[in-house]
Amino acid sequence: MKINENYRSLRDSYLFSDIAHKVAAFSESHPDRRIYKMGIGDVTLPLAPAVVAAMEEAVREQGERATFRGYGPEQGYPFLRESIREYYRSFGAAVDADEIFVSDGAKSDLGNILDLFDPDNTVLIPDPVYPVYVDTNKMAGRKIIYCAATRENAFLPMPDTSVKADIIYICSPDNPTGAAYSIERLRAWVDYARERGAVILYDAAYESFVSEKGLARSVYEVEGAKECAIEFCSFSKTAGFTGTRCGYTVVPFALKRCGMSLHAMWLRRQTTKFNGVAYAVQRGAAAALSEEGLRQIRANLSVYRNNAKIICDALDTLGIWYTGGRNSPYVWLQCPGFTNSFAFFDYLLEKTGVVGTPGGGFGRNGEGYFRLTSFADETTVRGAMAAFSAAFG
Amino acid sequence: MKINENYRSLRDSYLFSDIAHKVAAFSESHPDRRIYKMGIGDVTLPLAPAVVAAMEEAVREQGERATFRGYGPEQGYPFLRESIREYYRSFGAAVDADEIFVSDGAKSDLGNILDLFDPDNTVLIPDPVYPVYVDTNKMAGRKIIYCAATRENAFLPMPDTSVKADIIYICSPDNPTGAAYSIERLRAWVDYARERGAVILYDAAYESFVSEKGLARSVYEVEGAKECAIEFCSFSKTAGFTGTRCGYTVVPFALKRCGMSLHAMWLRRQTTKFNGVAYAVQRGAAAALSEEGLRQIRANLSVYRNNAKIICDALDTLGIWYTGGRNSPYVWLQCPGFTNSFAFFDYLLEKTGVVGTPGGGFGRNGEGYFRLTSFADETTVRGAMAAFSAAFG
Repeated sequence: MKINENYRSLRDSYLFSDIAHKVAAFSESHPDRRIYKMGIGDVTLPLAPAVVAAMEEAVREQGERATFRGYGPEQGYPFLRESIREYYRSFGAAVDADEIFVSDGAKSDLGNILDLFDPDNTVLIPDPVYPVYVDTNKMAGRKIIYCAATRENAFLPMPDTSVKADIIYICSPDNPTGAAYSIERLRAWVDYARERGAVILYDAAYESFVSEKGLARSVYEVEGAKECAIEFCSFSKTAGFTGTRCGYTVVPFALKRCGMSLHAMWLRRQTTKFNGVAYAVQRGAAAALSEEGLRQIRANLSVYRNNAKIICDALDTLGIWYTGGRNSPYVWLQCPGFTNSFAFFDYLLEKTGVVGTPGGGFGRNGEGYFRLTSFADETTVRGAMAAFSAAFG
Repeated sequence: MKINENYRSLRDSYLFSDIAHKVAAFSESHPDRRIYKMGIGDVTLPLAPAVVAAMEEAVREQGERATFRGYGPEQGYPFLRESIREYYRSFGAAVDADEIFVSDGAKSDLGNILDLFDPDNTVLIPDPVYPVYVDTNKMAGRKIIYCAATRENAFLPMPDTSVKADIIYICSPDNPTGAAYSIERLRAWVDYARERGAVILYDAAYESFVSEKGLARSVYEVEGAKECAIEFCSFSKTAGFTGTRCGYTVVPFALKRCGMSLHAMWLRRQTTKFNGVAYAVQRGAAAALSEEGLRQIRANLSVYRNNAKIICDALDTLGIWYTGGRNSPYVWLQCPGFTNSFAFFDYLLEKTGVVGTPGGGFGRNGEGYFRLTSFADETTVRGAMAAFSAAFG
């Protein structure tokens, strides 16, 4: 019996659980101190009333013989896939309902999609980056190369034609930096991928935060993207589904490699290793995309947007450099007075009670930077930024 | 860019979708004929009232700011893991709550667990078998060998010490045959696995149908199993969760290979590639294991058990050989007058309207046999067996 030896190359613990332990320890030793949690990218506002009503109704249906549903289609119910197609259409991206696969979240699909690719591929990952892209590829023993996201390129790296990559990760608006590609800039990546026969794994989990015109909500706003890109998205941030679990992945019919349809391969993977998402959850997700649901979830999104503005305004006043915040729930700032982001984390927690995420946890180029999230209530964010301003003003 | 070439070795379509197409075509061309669906292993009774109430309550909690929950633990909430531990304890298996991982279903985990093993392992799979075991290993390019389940061994193959296997699949009560191992017989497999350093992947999805004393509900009823076996189970058949999606996998602390803890590896896999199960679903699952919930789901199970008895009684009267049915929702019968199970499927559908699953779809040794499921209402089963008896009496 041989285990997967690649697991030995993984670090034992995970960035966010380390942070949770640090915060718990601080909290225990300072029971009187106020803690402002702006570290984890987890929503704080409840599910929209339209979502709750739809889920309650669906649960009741599941309790009645006449309306009970057993196994659903592995790729999701048509009612939800069609709602997602219309949602795409609302911002100008054309996706066929049958190209959409409903899942329990983008994280699952981002890991599982790698089943379709040989371990012998070179993977291009931005640095800094969401650690899951790196770890899932290490688990399969793939060669990973990095493209530097830095202050100089506004944390939006562009393709280097001398680099040979087969699988390319792009997250826009980005986690952790909040930087967002314009459709124009994204076009360069699509052209690079098509020329090389590479596949882009495009993480659009934060698309609903895009408010500026010309920035991409979907990679499919770029012509030709359907021949080279798979898109991952989620209701987690859009509709507060982090505890309710529903996402979707678009694998276009036009995406073929080595004579195989990646759509057909993913369908085969999902029908073999997945049994679909709970009916009640799919009803809730569809309700989030109804007219009433969209109005309600947009009200929640503007709370987070307003929080991000409070953070940005404070940093502007302090003259601290940052990116993100305008089209993203994340603000990515240069650590004031620190080059080590972990040391800054400790200092900030101790001095102000503000919890963020050290940029170094996302890669070498994240060192010296720090992520704050706007997923909190306004009082918390105002309190946090007042304490922050007092400490660094 | 290289795709995973192993996907080319997979058949394009899937047994149950083929059958669904055949039934749909028959239904369309014979709109007046009654069809008795006893093919798919999908429950038909609604969720228990205690489950519905718990899920509704949880959905309402998710709609209120004060009780909203975002990301939960990837391995499941303690309240559910502890309920599952108590459920195990109720039939005499000792499992630690931290050894239990909650997931969206056994099918997902049975596929995903293979991440932990090198492609270069020999996999021993019974024939006939649930096709997912075979396909998931083909996707990874593993060498598969089969152990014959036949009428001679009552479809319960025993280990052959001359066979060198690293990963061993056992499903008990079995899908498709309904045959169930006694604790005594299972001991031989545990001893074989421990001696060889192999790992048993034990699928206990149908354990709640076991009613005879001495038959295993869990592999952990066998001493030493914690050193060699991972167990997969699900609320799908136990509590009618096929459309609600919740399962659990036990990876014991004592299970180590090549100096690595498989528990630690699975925890790393799940925290990296999974984000847990919907809070409301976990509340529903825990309610199914409450005193009231257990009473209600057992009432549903006895409906299915009674249906299985109706099938068995009819076959007894006809003098047709079968196994299963007594500790399983599946009855596995020898096709009367046919050696080709697909031809029997067509004949049976045409002649009686009864839909089952041809044994040949589960492997070479399934040829000549046929699976009927008891997941239907009593009227359907009585009607089906009357038509069946008329045709073969």
